[in-house]
Amino acid sequence: MLVLLSIFMTLPVILLANGDHSDWKAFVISASAVLSIALVGLFLSRNQNGMLKQKQMFLLTVGSWVLISGLASLPLLLSDLDLSMTDAVFESVSGVTSTGSTVLTGLDDMPGDILVWRSIIQWIGGIGIIGMAVAILPFLRVGGMRLFATESSDWSEKALPRTITLGRGLIASYVGLTTLCILAYWLAGMNLFDAFNHGLTTVSTGGYSTSDASMGKFDSDLLLLIATLFMALGALPFFLYVRMLNGQYQALWRDEQVQAFFKILIGVSLALTIHGVWSQQNDVWGSFVASIFNVTSIVTTTGFASEDYTVWGPLAVAVFFFLTFVGGCSGSTSGGMKVFRFQLSFIMLREQITRLLHPRAVLSRRYNRRLISDDIIASSIAFSFMFFVTFAFIALALAGLGLDLTTSLTGAATAVANVGPGLGEIIGPAGNFQALPDAAKWVLCVGMLLGRLELLSVLVLLTADFWRK
Amino acid sequence: MLVLLSIFMTLPVILLANGDHSDWKAFVISASAVLSIALVGLFLSRNQNGMLKQKQMFLLTVGSWVLISGLASLPLLLSDLDLSMTDAVFESVSGVTSTGSTVLTGLDDMPGDILVWRSIIQWIGGIGIIGMAVAILPFLRVGGMRLFATESSDWSEKALPRTITLGRGLIASYVGLTTLCILAYWLAGMNLFDAFNHGLTTVSTGGYSTSDASMGKFDSDLLLLIATLFMALGALPFFLYVRMLNGQYQALWRDEQVQAFFKILIGVSLALTIHGVWSQQNDVWGSFVASIFNVTSIVTTTGFASEDYTVWGPLAVAVFFFLTFVGGCSGSTSGGMKVFRFQLSFIMLREQITRLLHPRAVLSRRYNRRLISDDIIASSIAFSFMFFVTFAFIALALAGLGLDLTTSLTGAATAVANVGPGLGEIIGPAGNFQALPDAAKWVLCVGMLLGRLELLSVLVLLTADFWRK
Repeated sequence: MLVLLSIFMTLPVILLANGDHSDWKAFVISASAVLSIALVGLFLSRNQNGMLKQKQMFLLTVGSWVLISGLASLPLLLSDLDLSMTDAVFESVSGVTSTGSTVLTGLDDMPGDILVWRSIIQWIGGIGIIGMAVAILPFLRVGGMRLFATESSDWSEKALPRTITLGRGLIASYVGLTTLCILAYWLAGMNLFDAFNHGLTTVSTGGYSTSDASMGKFDSDLLLLIATLFMALGALPFFLYVRMLNGQYQALWRDEQVQAFFKILIGVSLALTIHGVWSQQNDVWGSFVASIFNVTSIVTTTGFASEDYTVWGPLAVAVFFFLTFVGGCSGSTSGGMKVFRFQLSFIMLREQITRLLHPRAVLSRRYNRRLISDDIIASSIAFSFMFFVTFAFIALALAGLGLDLTTSLTGAATAVANVGPGLGEIIGPAGNFQALPDAAKWVLCVGMLLGRLELLSVLVLLTADFWRK
Repeated sequence: MLVLLSIFMTLPVILLANGDHSDWKAFVISASAVLSIALVGLFLSRNQNGMLKQKQMFLLTVGSWVLISGLASLPLLLSDLDLSMTDAVFESVSGVTSTGSTVLTGLDDMPGDILVWRSIIQWIGGIGIIGMAVAILPFLRVGGMRLFATESSDWSEKALPRTITLGRGLIASYVGLTTLCILAYWLAGMNLFDAFNHGLTTVSTGGYSTSDASMGKFDSDLLLLIATLFMALGALPFFLYVRMLNGQYQALWRDEQVQAFFKILIGVSLALTIHGVWSQQNDVWGSFVASIFNVTSIVTTTGFASEDYTVWGPLAVAVFFFLTFVGGCSGSTSGGMKVFRFQLSFIMLREQITRLLHPRAVLSRRYNRRLISDDIIASSIAFSFMFFVTFAFIALALAGLGLDLTTSLTGAATAVANVGPGLGEIIGPAGNFQALPDAAKWVLCVGMLLGRLELLSVLVLLTADFWRK
């Protein structure tokens, strides 16, 4: 992974060989440093066999994200931007976790290689998340993800060829969608540089932009709708794309999680459109485009903004607050609690209500036409509980550092759900994380990494049981 | 129940026969009206036998709370206060549900009979809640309450004598605690009128006061500590008092819920004391008294305030925000999610983490030295999920009516958890619910009743299944 990272680090320099870059030394030094670490690591582990035990898997997963987030900050730190250590690491963690909160301003005049690097780390983060969600978390039984374990998490030798095929399919889908997105942006009027950057950060549902005004810079409904489409595609379960590539063309539309995801997007967008037309006297089309773009941006945990939606009135603010928690589908690049966990909770709630009236009824739970066990429900609900506990602790830590209630609550939510913008004057869609105290930025870094690692995989490292021989 | 209500309605007039009351006609008319309704009801149901089916139990429970909340507003509506219908019903619902949010100002100069009536409806609400939690909800299997079903919810004829004994014990504990509280307030310096009113609203964890400044009026650390003690006693499981009356003196201290409840109170209070001394340069004793009083007031869902704790800084604000959800113990007069539900969630989380490391481990869950079934966990978690869904819908409705984010979120939380004050300038501890639009007051009434009825007992009435023959 580190060898790959060092290769990616040279990309900004190569891509902009004739263009506006200023910091090529920063990238070359960073790439050399990462490559050296990789080679030392390879040398030290040359006698290890390749099979990992479950505990090593936990350590490796958590360790990789922390290490790559740290190392990806090197080019930012070494560049001419004069970033503090805190700001460089925050920007890097926000990038690699595909969160998209930024401490940088003046993006429109920033050297191209820095902008490309920000986009690349979000794109790397995106594929990392899909791989983790499809291949590692179901195997580790984290957070109800075993629900999606059928074809991906059989780690026996026998299943290895199938796992490799799946991996190839996932990468092909990811690269394919990214290419289509870049092309679509380009054909719809972005220049190639903007199209490339936004393509990388749209499909990865990351949300870094090349402008302080985010997508508002382009002032184009067509571009907003293209972004909406590809943010939504990035938030769908990627293994369903692989099934479609294998000829199961109905896989995507028949999936109950995908159906619920689109119902949420369309339902909330229409409600906000009506609210916008009614209370703000906006025109219908403009209100619809703004609603569906910004709702999709938050639910998919991308975090692009086309305008400051906090001026749409208190209802919009409250809607965006709750949307921050939702997230996209499992096995996608998105963060948040994920749609299937709400569905499982609803299934359980419905079951409980039925039981109130029919205490002796024998009920069977089905999701996506499969029976689901108590264990999967319990695991999914343990995740949801842990999500709120983590959210509360991060919010309390931010409040302890002196941030107001709105900034603390929405900052914690946007970090743990890997969304990007919060609410309020400081970190709202028109704001910037630069103004926060350094300690708050570190707290948010912890929140972003915890959210990205689905919480429990970190929590398990904190148990005494884990470190026992 | 209505006969009892009409008798209680005459109490303010009788108690203040020689004192400052102005509205005796309002009470006499209201009492007569309620008594007439009661007699008509008795006449119409004279041929019914006394045994209730489960569905009738749901209807009766929900119907009683709605009806009594409505009828209890009559004296307020007919009084010289010139309250609107909305304000009278809000004050009444807030009283009967022991919430304690008020729309009235100028309490210090208000006729005594109105103040006594507010205190009485909170006290009636308190005993109603205990009765419902101990006798009805476990029987109906709502929200994991079956965990507490051993001795109280066997409704067979055989168990009837035991149920009557339990009922007597509960009433004795409630009346005894209230009497002790009134005496303690009186001996510590309140006049008899204030002691009587605050005694009723302390043990019922309601929180109505005889002053706009709430407990701040008395400016006495001793009174604050007495209030702290009796609020905490009101938030403990009342059936444990009955066990103590029957000679099991250890019952209270050996209960895991009670232990956790006190750990929360003391832990959070000490943290806020340190924070207060550190950041606000308060003296240690004053900071401790203010912390433990206000923390206990919110966790027990009483809602008294001794001062505006929102000026203690952002950490205190965030702490009080999250405390709003916690609530006291099951089977008490308090609201909120209740301590045992957090404990069950933690037990489940710990079990999940163990499972991550030992997938084939056979685990048994114990709470209060008893094995707990999957069904109880599921039911408790369904409640928690429903709590957050209800909170979100009430908050969105308030935001849709134009309230800002802080007021919407904390207004919804304080209503559904039956606490009393919210946060922010409007409904914070120094504020008043008067300023809200009428529609918001009705939304909050719905929230208070839903919270008081443990949500699911209402939800079950909304299913088509319920109304099927």
